[in-house]
Amino acid sequence: MAKPLITLTTDFGDADYYVPAMKGVILSINPSAEIVDLTHQIPPHDIYTAAFTLKCCFNDFPRDTIHLVVVDPGVGSNRRAILVMTDNHRFVGPDNGVFSYIYQGEPVNRIVHLTSEHYFRSPVSNTFHGRDVFAPCAAYISKLVEWRMMGEEISDPVRFNIPNPATLANGHVKGHVIHVDRFGNIVTNITSAELPDTTIQAGARVRIGKMEPARVLTHFAEAGPNELFAYFGSAGYLELAVPRQSAARLAEARRGAEVEVAV
Amino acid sequence: MAKPLITLTTDFGDADYYVPAMKGVILSINPSAEIVDLTHQIPPHDIYTAAFTLKCCFNDFPRDTIHLVVVDPGVGSNRRAILVMTDNHRFVGPDNGVFSYIYQGEPVNRIVHLTSEHYFRSPVSNTFHGRDVFAPCAAYISKLVEWRMMGEEISDPVRFNIPNPATLANGHVKGHVIHVDRFGNIVTNITSAELPDTTIQAGARVRIGKMEPARVLTHFAEAGPNELFAYFGSAGYLELAVPRQSAARLAEARRGAEVEVAV
Amino acid sequence: MAKPLITLTTDFGDADYYVPAMKGVILSINPSAEIVDLTHQIPPHDIYTAAFTLKCCFNDFPRDTIHLVVVDPGVGSNRRAILVMTDNHRFVGPDNGVFSYIYQGEPVNRIVHLTSEHYFRSPVSNTFHGRDVFAPCAAYISKLVEWRMMGEEISDPVRFNIPNPATLANGHVKGHVIHVDRFGNIVTNITSAELPDTTIQAGARVRIGKMEPARVLTHFAEAGPNELFAYFGSAGYLELAVPRQSAARLAEARRGAEVEVAV
Repeated sequence: MAKPLITLTTDFGDADYYVPAMKGVILSINPSAEIVDLTHQIPPHDIYTAAFTLKCCFNDFPRDTIHLVVVDPGVGSNRRAILVMTDNHRFVGPDNGVFSYIYQGEPVNRIVHLTSEHYFRSPVSNTFHGRDVFAPCAAYISKLVEWRMMGEEISDPVRFNIPNPATLANGHVKGHVIHVDRFGNIVTNITSAELPDTTIQAGARVRIGKMEPARVLTHFAEAGPNELFAYFGSAGYLELAVPRQSAARLAEARRGAEVEVAV
Repeated sequence: MAKPLITLTTDFGDADYYVPAMKGVILSINPSAEIVDLTHQIPPHDIYTAAFTLKCCFNDFPRDTIHLVVVDPGVGSNRRAILVMTDNHRFVGPDNGVFSYIYQGEPVNRIVHLTSEHYFRSPVSNTFHGRDVFAPCAAYISKLVEWRMMGEEISDPVRFNIPNPATLANGHVKGHVIHVDRFGNIVTNITSAELPDTTIQAGARVRIGKMEPARVLTHFAEAGPNELFAYFGSAGYLELAVPRQSAARLAEARRGAEVEVAV
Repeated sequence: MAKPLITLTTDFGDADYYVPAMKGVILSINPSAEIVDLTHQIPPHDIYTAAFTLKCCFNDFPRDTIHLVVVDPGVGSNRRAILVMTDNHRFVGPDNGVFSYIYQGEPVNRIVHLTSEHYFRSPVSNTFHGRDVFAPCAAYISKLVEWRMMGEEISDPVRFNIPNPATLANGHVKGHVIHVDRFGNIVTNITSAELPDTTIQAGARVRIGKMEPARVLTHFAEAGPNELFAYFGSAGYLELAVPRQSAARLAEARRGAEVEVAV
């Protein structure tokens, strides 16, 4: 039988004792759990980036994986600790909107407010629920403890508005930058739902900042040496890149920057 | 049966071949070992930070975990390689003080100078005992090789002075900064032993640098938006933070900076 | 029986969803695979550094380990995906020279062009073959799928010239810097093949930049406090260091810089 898988997503970085403390707690409760780092480099308190990063890869993990997310600027306040259950995955973390993409994209079977202190590390600190609440709850869930034992169902989770692109009167599509990756590639919130194939074949151009409008290509290899070009990336979003250079640096683009597609 | 757990703490970073070489050596000797990264981001040669980081989380790991620490500025000199055994954990690394907090806080049953070349990788390089001495010894220990086979007991390990806070004539407590974490939170060496609850309830204030004296709070959520405040952190030390900002940047505080609590 | 081991080497960094997506794909195909990060900090598109890092540690891993390397600036072009088989190891990655050191140093039994889409993730994106081609192929190989099922043997893999040192008319040895590590230690391409023991005992000196010619020592501990010195490092190459300082910063040395040994 496969070992229970738990992924970890945090803003703790990789230099402090926070991540190994969580791993130690998990392995103390369930020595047969297998832990996979999703990332610990979420910018401090950046709930949106955590939500986006999780959305882009949780579905590549096997059925029944538990995704533990600790980006928790509200630790020590009365924000709730929750478990979100879908058909194929479970998610554990603070109720601060970090699962908004899951609520939007997946049929959610149940959301549970984790209240049973029996499953917490004792004593619970006021500043590190990653170690004291979320990690132990995820570990007990991986041991098949029933959700009914751990808390009560809720129906009003916190969610943020997922920013959608708009179609303008002239038919142009207006969106914005939602992520810049390590290569300087620019990810926008525009998907193929807003930009059908026919539009692209008709020579759509993508405008960002003061750059020359970019062609939409299907392969990196078609781009000229210093050409800013657009393409649909591996997460399904329209992206902008420059071959072997940082498009974000060239276009001076950050998250939130406007992008417009002229059809 | 649970798999033998080995944690790794080094100053090797995550870009060079040093850490995977150690992992390869361990898994070649004991394929059933489970390796957990504690951190590889200890600043180069910083024995103190390695000791502190290990202290803050080793105890969250299951009984019998082996903690392998390679922060080893004296590699190639005659510093000893040692195994430290406590009731619940084992520690392998250079005898350079990196286990000072363990000696202070745990009943140590035995310290062994690892001398038996039979358990080393061959040949032993002069510059990388992490791969050639410490990793293979930890792997053999995880295979239950007896310490008697690996070296001789010693009683004079190197230790550094753990810096304790002082109580001044006027009753104030004087300590210093021992760590700054990823969020810019400032960790001091002052614990609840020096600052009893009654003192805090009476309105103790914490001074650092040129900042306004800070209140001691129990929850992050009680602090004002730009307020520097103090609290007992998840490792038991008095810490200073500013909500969603870097207290260390605001207070211009680094390790070693003075902190004073006025009672 | 030991679990199948897969190491990962990429230039994806540790902040994006790319690495966990690959891990999720591998574990979905082969839940019993054990994944070890070699490094994800290869500088973007730097095939040489990936080749060098892999060369320095692949052999420390157990027999039959699969080494998956995704440094793939040519993704989306017609560069091939390959499997390289040696007596003890297997390598999966793009055919862009990243296995040049393996071709040079190991007897290669077979190189296979991976063409069978049956073993790819579907659909295959144009930008992320790490997730869609290389990870699934490595996972199926770890499940003992025969190479014949996955593609056709080839004999013309891409390789880059491994830069060798030269012996000058005056007997001096001229090489260059191939790597700078986290400590600022400088790794050159000169090995003991070019610099026999007798030469070193006769007082060979190593010149780099404008620095005082460096002695060749056998132990770090023999060096003076600010002395630039040379030694044979743990990967078999002549290196330059300064005790507890960055030699690369002091000597202003980068990859490609010339090094000369005067005998």
